[in-house]
Amino acid sequence: MRQVGSALWPRLRTVQVYGANTGVGKTVVSTLLCKALRKRLPDYNVHYLKPISTGPLEDQDNRHITRYSKDITSKTLLQFDDPVSPHIAARISKEPIDDQSILTRVHDELLSYATGKDAVAVVETAGGVLSPAPSGNVQADLYRPLRLPTLLVGDHRLGGIGSTISSWESLHVRGYDVNSVLLFEESRYDNHTYLREYFKERGILTLSLPPPPEAKSSQAEDEQSMKQYYDSASHSSSLEQCIDNIIRTHDQRLSSLQSLPKRADSSIWHPFMQHTERSEQNILAIDSAYGDYFQTHNSTGSGSKEGNQLKPAFDGSASWWTQGLGHGNPALALTAAHAAGRYGHVMFAGAAHEPAVSLSETLLQNIGNPRLSKVFFSDNGSTGMEVAVKMALKAASKRYGWSPDDEVLILGLKGSYHGDTIGTMDLSEPSTYNKKVEWYSGRGHWFDFPLVKMQQGKWIVEPPAGMEEEFGPTRAFSSLDEVFALSGRKADADRYEAYIQTSLEALTAEGKKFGALIMEPVILGAGGMLFSDPLFQHILVKVTREQCPELYGNAEATPDSELGWKGVPVVFDEVFTGLYRLGRFSSSSFVDVQPDISVHAKLLTGGLLPLCTTLASESIFEAFLSPEKSDALLHGHSYTAHAVGCDIAKYSLKTMQEMDEGSTWTSFKSAWKQEEGDGKQNLWSMWSQDFVRELSLRPNVESVFALGSVLAISLKDPAGSGYTSTAATGLRDTLLHDSSEENAIHSRVLGNVLYLMASMTTTPETIASIQRKVQAAI
Amino acid sequence: MRQVGSALWPRLRTVQVYGANTGVGKTVVSTLLCKALRKRLPDYNVHYLKPISTGPLEDQDNRHITRYSKDITSKTLLQFDDPVSPHIAARISKEPIDDQSILTRVHDELLSYATGKDAVAVVETAGGVLSPAPSGNVQADLYRPLRLPTLLVGDHRLGGIGSTISSWESLHVRGYDVNSVLLFEESRYDNHTYLREYFKERGILTLSLPPPPEAKSSQAEDEQSMKQYYDSASHSSSLEQCIDNIIRTHDQRLSSLQSLPKRADSSIWHPFMQHTERSEQNILAIDSAYGDYFQTHNSTGSGSKEGNQLKPAFDGSASWWTQGLGHGNPALALTAAHAAGRYGHVMFAGAAHEPAVSLSETLLQNIGNPRLSKVFFSDNGSTGMEVAVKMALKAASKRYGWSPDDEVLILGLKGSYHGDTIGTMDLSEPSTYNKKVEWYSGRGHWFDFPLVKMQQGKWIVEPPAGMEEEFGPTRAFSSLDEVFALSGRKADADRYEAYIQTSLEALTAEGKKFGALIMEPVILGAGGMLFSDPLFQHILVKVTREQCPELYGNAEATPDSELGWKGVPVVFDEVFTGLYRLGRFSSSSFVDVQPDISVHAKLLTGGLLPLCTTLASESIFEAFLSPEKSDALLHGHSYTAHAVGCDIAKYSLKTMQEMDEGSTWTSFKSAWKQEEGDGKQNLWSMWSQDFVRELSLRPNVESVFALGSVLAISLKDPAGSGYTSTAATGLRDTLLHDSSEENAIHSRVLGNVLYLMASMTTTPETIASIQRKVQAAI
Repeated sequence: MRQVGSALWPRLRTVQVYGANTGVGKTVVSTLLCKALRKRLPDYNVHYLKPISTGPLEDQDNRHITRYSKDITSKTLLQFDDPVSPHIAARISKEPIDDQSILTRVHDELLSYATGKDAVAVVETAGGVLSPAPSGNVQADLYRPLRLPTLLVGDHRLGGIGSTISSWESLHVRGYDVNSVLLFEESRYDNHTYLREYFKERGILTLSLPPPPEAKSSQAEDEQSMKQYYDSASHSSSLEQCIDNIIRTHDQRLSSLQSLPKRADSSIWHPFMQHTERSEQNILAIDSAYGDYFQTHNSTGSGSKEGNQLKPAFDGSASWWTQGLGHGNPALALTAAHAAGRYGHVMFAGAAHEPAVSLSETLLQNIGNPRLSKVFFSDNGSTGMEVAVKMALKAASKRYGWSPDDEVLILGLKGSYHGDTIGTMDLSEPSTYNKKVEWYSGRGHWFDFPLVKMQQGKWIVEPPAGMEEEFGPTRAFSSLDEVFALSGRKADADRYEAYIQTSLEALTAEGKKFGALIMEPVILGAGGMLFSDPLFQHILVKVTREQCPELYGNAEATPDSELGWKGVPVVFDEVFTGLYRLGRFSSSSFVDVQPDISVHAKLLTGGLLPLCTTLASESIFEAFLSPEKSDALLHGHSYTAHAVGCDIAKYSLKTMQEMDEGSTWTSFKSAWKQEEGDGKQNLWSMWSQDFVRELSLRPNVESVFALGSVLAISLKDPAGSGYTSTAATGLRDTLLHDSSEENAIHSRVLGNVLYLMASMTTTPETIASIQRKVQAAI
Repeated sequence: MRQVGSALWPRLRTVQVYGANTGVGKTVVSTLLCKALRKRLPDYNVHYLKPISTGPLEDQDNRHITRYSKDITSKTLLQFDDPVSPHIAARISKEPIDDQSILTRVHDELLSYATGKDAVAVVETAGGVLSPAPSGNVQADLYRPLRLPTLLVGDHRLGGIGSTISSWESLHVRGYDVNSVLLFEESRYDNHTYLREYFKERGILTLSLPPPPEAKSSQAEDEQSMKQYYDSASHSSSLEQCIDNIIRTHDQRLSSLQSLPKRADSSIWHPFMQHTERSEQNILAIDSAYGDYFQTHNSTGSGSKEGNQLKPAFDGSASWWTQGLGHGNPALALTAAHAAGRYGHVMFAGAAHEPAVSLSETLLQNIGNPRLSKVFFSDNGSTGMEVAVKMALKAASKRYGWSPDDEVLILGLKGSYHGDTIGTMDLSEPSTYNKKVEWYSGRGHWFDFPLVKMQQGKWIVEPPAGMEEEFGPTRAFSSLDEVFALSGRKADADRYEAYIQTSLEALTAEGKKFGALIMEPVILGAGGMLFSDPLFQHILVKVTREQCPELYGNAEATPDSELGWKGVPVVFDEVFTGLYRLGRFSSSSFVDVQPDISVHAKLLTGGLLPLCTTLASESIFEAFLSPEKSDALLHGHSYTAHAVGCDIAKYSLKTMQEMDEGSTWTSFKSAWKQEEGDGKQNLWSMWSQDFVRELSLRPNVESVFALGSVLAISLKDPAGSGYTSTAATGLRDTLLHDSSEENAIHSRVLGNVLYLMASMTTTPETIASIQRKVQAAI
């Protein structure tokens, strides 16, 4: 499927004419504008385009235009004879037209205007801003991917102030740039005076035009009177100002886009970047985004001259693993605005509001873990993990009677990553990420673990180098489901259990105290997209829960409740892996574990805003109860449980649950269904098995895996893998700069691993097209 | 000024009827609804209320209603004879009516319906959703504080689908609950069929009604035909469903509000709270918020029976110090939605988008500190300070050649507070907040410092107990400005300098290494609202910058540039004090210091969403440049520089700058202007000097201060001050539970200190009313 992106050709100034309602005079205004353009810009081509027209052919707006203005081109793309809303007209005509094909036609038509000569294109919409398109979607949603600069024709009639402002708001919340409002003068209602002031405060030029004459009794008289009107009114200084504004805002948009990298280079300190490698040339300027695609500045190749300055680039990192419901999603925008309009932000200390309470209930009800009973809010995965570790260490210290002076460590896996604040950095072993941070000190023991991967067409479980004795040799599995059928892997389980138990005994014999077991279930993300053997994680939890109290010589300190924590509190960092990233609400079910604490962020808001929740069991919660305030969890950020984030999260979780239960992911799921063997695990990915298998056979590929929306390609690097490897950067650059393609793929690498991540709304067609590009590039 | 709050009386069901445009049949629908209500709820009172009516008296909607329906009360509050928009009618009639008085009248009218018998009130608006009110503000903004449950009359005409959806969006972004949409059936356009599906997906009941008859030639015929229509159409099942929906949503809202505390108690782990003290009874349920006020559940006193279940409570902590532009601000909501619609969130690694770049430039240009040149984004003050300390320690370690194994400390002030993540906790001395956190270890030296306070009617600078020798005795000043006239306080400066120098020499003689000086300028917030002598902070920076290199025996390691950091990097934590909280864009000017790093959050987004910026000098930035990626600042949260937050921040800063340069705060500023002495400091507060002075004379008050929007009242506590004191809780509870008042004050205490904080849009009238309440309560 071809991805139609935003339109911004240097020599073509476009203006999309929306109306505040039917009957406000869009066509009259467009005609005046075309006439005035013809006069004011004599060297330009002037184009009038009506993508969708309803009503008798003889009344077509483009005929009206050409009747009254000379030397312009005029075109209608879709004609329905019935003068009703296009969605009804399309139904009657039995030619329902999908949004994508209309978008493509408009784009290609504009493209044909864009080269050679300077030009202006006036694109007139049908009906009001949110009138239905032939597909039934509202018109402003249909055209949004093009994001053309917009002129709103206001309503001069009684009630027109309100309808004009509402129409503007509907465009504004969809991310349009409304650069001007034009409406007829009407002295009694004086809407134009009010609206001029109203929109001036919002930076929008509002202009008025003399009203057209009353309709005459005969067509000839009518045409004569309209001709006089057009000849006279097209000299209005309002139109001159409007045209100057069209030119100016076009130039400003171009220069803003072109200057963004330079301005960013001067004023921004980018995250996770060595700035000796930064230059104006390699900063990606993003004009906007829609669905799965960024609209990026196309500064090379076709974009360098007269070509489209914007190029769609697939958001292949799902914007750092956050995207769930797509960029520029109007439902998310409206949900955010509703919460902002109802609450703004209200402080959460000792307070309750519906979005936070209702979100907490949704999380607890759907997480599938009866242990979890309380939700603590913070702003991002890192702060959520700070909260989690404070919870766990306090609970353990209290039960085992440790003093504040005791050094308490955590248990984890090698290659784990839990955040950038210093407390969460301490949860990981020394690595490139943290070892040069002055206050970092790793506080834990981190286990080696076997990896799951597709290699040479086979799913395998592979022990770390040199650890065949502890973990067994590399084993092949008939399917990914078989790897996850934990109860069928008795021999592996016994081997893992023996190894973990021996290790724990040795560690505690050294006098080490452990206050938490902390893991990212299934996939360790920032550490390098490491797909951990789920059985190893399962056994690690089991052994730690069973053995720790005895090791600490405090076996009696076990909780009364079945749901109380045992051994050490188990913390699952699901910031990356949870909330459908791997295809399930919670990723803890993959490893068949009920953690005592679990942390959720990223997809939580569908990909719009920072918000994090740390879920805890009652037995963890109770560890902080005391008559002393100082025993409480004295943690809380200013915007804790902000209503906007909570309402968006509620909406996003509900939407993704409906997608899961409905048919949205059916084709992905059925493609991964196992025909034989233990098919009960129901693992699936948006990336196809055949694609994964094919890639794994490539000579430069070490291994591949896919689960849920995540794909990871590990490339061979003779210099060794890890964060400092550059083996994957070539592939990344090829995908981004493929100049033969209309759209690119933006991806991120972690050392020798290039990963791609879809949003939860990415279609099978888009996935297929990305897969083809990757196969061609690798 | 009386604060009109939201309306929710248990026995009065209200429905506010908005129209998707003029002429959609609001009055016909209201008439049908009243008739159907009369029939379906025979034991209820049925009230029709038209707050504002335009057009000839004989055409008044309430006359129409009473003509066709029996046994209902009907009233118009404001009548303008001219059938134009109310803002023009009000201008013509020369009786411009302000929003507040209309709100009050509507509220009081509803109140008169609310007791005794069960009742329903139908409140019909004028024109469309955003038609101007008499004041000129749009109608949906006028009525927003009442937040009445809403019925939208849709538009059945051509173009009506779009205008109905846009009208709903305008209500939705203002935080209204639109519970149902009603519109006439029209078979050709079939708007009702489309809208029923559209709104069903959004949880809104959409119903259609038979269309009214065409207008007849004579009035008598007309009345006869309307009567027949009403008699027949009022039996429509749509109206029954609509009425049931009104009743049901009313009951749901009540029960949701009443159950919120219980549900929160069950599912929420609150920030900064000892949960042994939490119960259903003391969790504050917040239904919504507008301007300076929460709408809280009024569960005691008048609210316990038939009274309004909602009570406005002044947000006296400015929602944990965040509020700038007021709750439920539609401009913020629309700005947020626009950025969401244009971008959603786009990953910021190596990328640039207009909101982030433009916000960075705004900050750097207005901060008034030529040292600062780069902006790093994170999510909250705590993460922003983590970034700041990483920056400072790296720069110092690099310059002085320290190894990762060296223990590097920071310099700061006692009572400082920089956040809840473990790294920022380590920036503060041991205290109630942190000492029981397992991984906390204070890493610094914290200086005592003199306090500024108004005591017994005098501004004084007071040394810490027992430190008169080091800091001099308590001194009185004629004004706060005189305290801040730093250059005039030579003797104090010398004394401070000698003390600091001696202290630093002793510390470094012990071999201690310091990598940063970190302070909250002027006021140390969470540590107890400690107003530090600005001269002491000034001198501390001066001495640290001058002395440190020599003390480290590395005097040559000074930067080339004037703007390079010297001694140790100076970090200002302006998270609380910056961005107009104390009346200025940056609070560093109060202490006449240009820090090398400064951190800004809270007010940054006007009070809507989490966002933080850490600003750094070029010389700090350069410390991370190297050929090695591992030398970079490897920090970055998923939603770094999220477009929504950046766009809101741009808007908020611009708005507050305009308020500062315009007349918004003039009355506050001029009230604080010094007539004699050194008046050049231009300190001012929204809280009046007389009020501050009067409070300071109260026998139970230890001291008071005010600056910008902050007021702090320190109460005498024989048991000692500090976080564990309960001296201020009585005053807090009195302000919240004052049952004689129509509105309450919600405040927060820090030990023996009760503070109040306004937003930047709080009016002088509101401040005056809060001051009176505090004077009465104390």
